Amino acid sequence: MAKKKKKTFRPKARLPKGMRDVESAEISAMSSMLETIRECYHLYGFEALETPVFEYSDALGKSLPDQDRPNAGVFSFEDEDSQWLSLRYDLTAPLARYVAQHYDALPKPFRRYQTGYVWRNEKAGPGRYRQFRQFDADSVGVPGVAADAELCMLASHTIEKLGIGRGQYVMRVNNRKILDGVLEMIGIDPKGEEDLEMRMTILRSIDKLDRLGIVGVEALLGEGRKDDSGAYTKGAGLPIEKIAKIIAFVGAGADERTAVLENFRTLVSSSVTGMEGVVELEEMDSLFVASGFGTDRIVFDPSIVRGLDYYTGPVFEAELTFEVKDEKGQPIRFGSVGGGGRYDGLIAKFKGIEVPATGFSIGVSRLYTALNALGKFSGGSGYGPVIVMVMDKDRLGDYQKMVGRLREAGIRSELYLGGSGIRAQMKYADKRKAVCVVIQGSDEQSRGEVMLKDLIEGMQKSEEIVDNKSWREGRPAQFAVAEAELVEAVRSVLARYGDS
Amino acid sequence: MAKKKKKTFRPKARLPKGMRDVESAEISAMSSMLETIRECYHLYGFEALETPVFEYSDALGKSLPDQDRPNAGVFSFEDEDSQWLSLRYDLTAPLARYVAQHYDALPKPFRRYQTGYVWRNEKAGPGRYRQFRQFDADSVGVPGVAADAELCMLASHTIEKLGIGRGQYVMRVNNRKILDGVLEMIGIDPKGEEDLEMRMTILRSIDKLDRLGIVGVEALLGEGRKDDSGAYTKGAGLPIEKIAKIIAFVGAGADERTAVLENFRTLVSSSVTGMEGVVELEEMDSLFVASGFGTDRIVFDPSIVRGLDYYTGPVFEAELTFEVKDEKGQPIRFGSVGGGGRYDGLIAKFKGIEVPATGFSIGVSRLYTALNALGKFSGGSGYGPVIVMVMDKDRLGDYQKMVGRLREAGIRSELYLGGSGIRAQMKYADKRKAVCVVIQGSDEQSRGEVMLKDLIEGMQKSEEIVDNKSWREGRPAQFAVAEAELVEAVRSVLARYGDS
Repeated sequence: MAKKKKKTFRPKARLPKGMRDVESAEISAMSSMLETIRECYHLYGFEALETPVFEYSDALGKSLPDQDRPNAGVFSFEDEDSQWLSLRYDLTAPLARYVAQHYDALPKPFRRYQTGYVWRNEKAGPGRYRQFRQFDADSVGVPGVAADAELCMLASHTIEKLGIGRGQYVMRVNNRKILDGVLEMIGIDPKGEEDLEMRMTILRSIDKLDRLGIVGVEALLGEGRKDDSGAYTKGAGLPIEKIAKIIAFVGAGADERTAVLENFRTLVSSSVTGMEGVVELEEMDSLFVASGFGTDRIVFDPSIVRGLDYYTGPVFEAELTFEVKDEKGQPIRFGSVGGGGRYDGLIAKFKGIEVPATGFSIGVSRLYTALNALGKFSGGSGYGPVIVMVMDKDRLGDYQKMVGRLREAGIRSELYLGGSGIRAQMKYADKRKAVCVVIQGSDEQSRGEVMLKDLIEGMQKSEEIVDNKSWREGRPAQFAVAEAELVEAVRSVLARYGDS
Repeated sequence: MAKKKKKTFRPKARLPKGMRDVESAEISAMSSMLETIRECYHLYGFEALETPVFEYSDALGKSLPDQDRPNAGVFSFEDEDSQWLSLRYDLTAPLARYVAQHYDALPKPFRRYQTGYVWRNEKAGPGRYRQFRQFDADSVGVPGVAADAELCMLASHTIEKLGIGRGQYVMRVNNRKILDGVLEMIGIDPKGEEDLEMRMTILRSIDKLDRLGIVGVEALLGEGRKDDSGAYTKGAGLPIEKIAKIIAFVGAGADERTAVLENFRTLVSSSVTGMEGVVELEEMDSLFVASGFGTDRIVFDPSIVRGLDYYTGPVFEAELTFEVKDEKGQPIRFGSVGGGGRYDGLIAKFKGIEVPATGFSIGVSRLYTALNALGKFSGGSGYGPVIVMVMDKDRLGDYQKMVGRLREAGIRSELYLGGSGIRAQMKYADKRKAVCVVIQGSDEQSRGEVMLKDLIEGMQKSEEIVDNKSWREGRPAQFAVAEAELVEAVRSVLARYGDS
């Protein structure tokens, strides 16, 4: 029967936009980093929780800052009941769902940590990923700002535990209520629905201070701003005297926390909400002082507003202040590697009653990049397994037995399982960064011996090997031992490189 | 200005169908379980890899057994370029994409392990989740069945390391080529496209042997079968003599591996493919024997076929053989907790050239349930943090300082951050399973002391506390120490319960 040959469809092997694969060295470094963070959060009394990667879209809500893209910045799909599901874009919204669902059964306060990936359907580009990892700690059912102060100190503690020194980072703290006070004073409703858009525009404008400077923020609060590429961003359209009030607030920073509080007090003295915010920061300051956290670790910074709309009180950001040079010698600053704040209204979305809560989230993926740039992950031998070579395909059982003995002794090892000859096997061992290979050809077998080759020692010479014969004559850095002493001998080679 | 009150939409706080939250005790047990598996895979020379949770749908392909649901069993969504993305349904398809994408740069063989969740858009129900965790090890670029044998031994090794004893589990091994031989002999093309559906029906029918028995499988191979609920499954429609051949194959099992091989040889002697499969199993048997793996750990079982269509050679399953009783005293068997096999054609989908490969996947979520039922996770104190109580809200700074000292000393502790009085604070400490609370009211402060209360000792009595006064008169299991000795004293209380 003659069959018509169908053209086969071959999909291109490629990653979805904004996604990446993570390989073993990074996985291992990341895992020790996550364990350090976990230990800190645990020490502070938080409990682990894990929620699924997607939730019903209505439960996640819409709190992302940039929603000018389709799907409003999240990845969404419909289930078979036509209910919309979305991949989580942070770990706070799923926590709010969890707390609302189990409210009566939970201890109050409820303190949980969670780590996991989150996904944002945003523009992807070099270094801009759509999947990244966060590590959050949140306290729920905590009316006082002692909980916010604790999170700032926890963040500081954690960052130092990860090997970032004092002076290389700073926690920047502000309070949304003070900004709300400023808004109130210029006739913008800081709570209601109708001024929401205006409020978000102002928040996002202030949020860009570090990138655009005061002049840029002024433009965004007023008519608008054309950037270097010629792209135009429409402004908030505020009149000049209102812009001045906001800019005065943004510029109220100072080195000492008490000086910032003094500036704030002058700015919002006529606003009840604003003064409430100032009193809260005062209380946080006194807790910082009591615990010995000076301005080398925690400062008050009016320009910290955070882009999310759900914050209702103190907000904070962890910023790395050191620079490293990239491959071209250009300085790179990492900036914010975490942030959070109080969100007393988020759980009310489900419950109808306010449940005061505050949280801090480490941007693990970005912090990892920074720690890597600091050379914090240079530890670990990076050596591969011991390779037992296949000299005679009919003797696989014997070689397998040797591997079994090594593994039994806790030595990472493998039998060469490819189909190639001795030269390819040596190349494979090099590529796997094996310290040592085990060889038993017929000669060695007849003498009841195995040959061990130290690949680190013999590395330079391996390039010259052209065939089995010339290689065996060269025998660089290798020696024979009785087969019964295989394990001890391999161990002694590994020990040369601290890899036992 | 009078505003119209809008009715607020309150989403119900609920989990998507088939999803679950995981709480701290399970997270901690799971994490130690994953670490044990990781250590085994690492010992065998596999390297970690992590791929993103979703891939382009065309790269994942369609290999799931039950595709009678919309979305073909996966969760899919469109990106902004109208390309379809799908949450991974296993870890093998993303590996094939990764290998095809980086083929030239990878060591050959390429040996990787990966753990992570996978998602199936299947019917959800009690105990049937749509998100579950797998832990895979795969060898790519391995033409010989020594690689398959290694995975069976690794699986056995790993299961025992997790605390499942010899005799409580068994690895069941078969070879698709032998079944292919049987199909060939009854005139069904074991490779081509046109008999694909028939082949999948046969595979799935055999796969149900343990649930339906021989009679049920016969019915599914023939006319069809009505189950207890009255639902009818259409059969393969094979004539009786062909069914007999398949049933003879399925029934070719025996206790000894050599006896099964003998039966197979008789059944497929006239098929080249079939005999190739028998020779492969013989080779695996000799490797098992060389490494001391008897039939108490690895058996040959013709009924193991695996539901996925991409397997091309040896297939294997890890089965738990012990029973536990559920709450009603009914016996539960856990059955298969992992499986895998050779899939020489999967990477060819991208590359056009065959890259021989084999893998094994542990169904971690199911195995966890089994280990839990065996009581393997009863370790760990389960105690909560030390709670420093708030007796006087104006002295938060002092209490915060005490917590700081405890944490400094590595003692897990927290300041009570809720807004409630002393009774609620005690209830909170109980609920958190705190071993010890730290109390400093004005009396203790005036004496430069703190009061420690041992909650384990005092647990029964805590129910009787009605107010601050009566509780302070009762003082169960509590004692005062100088504030300077706080850390040592707390440590001594924790040490009473092995929780230091």
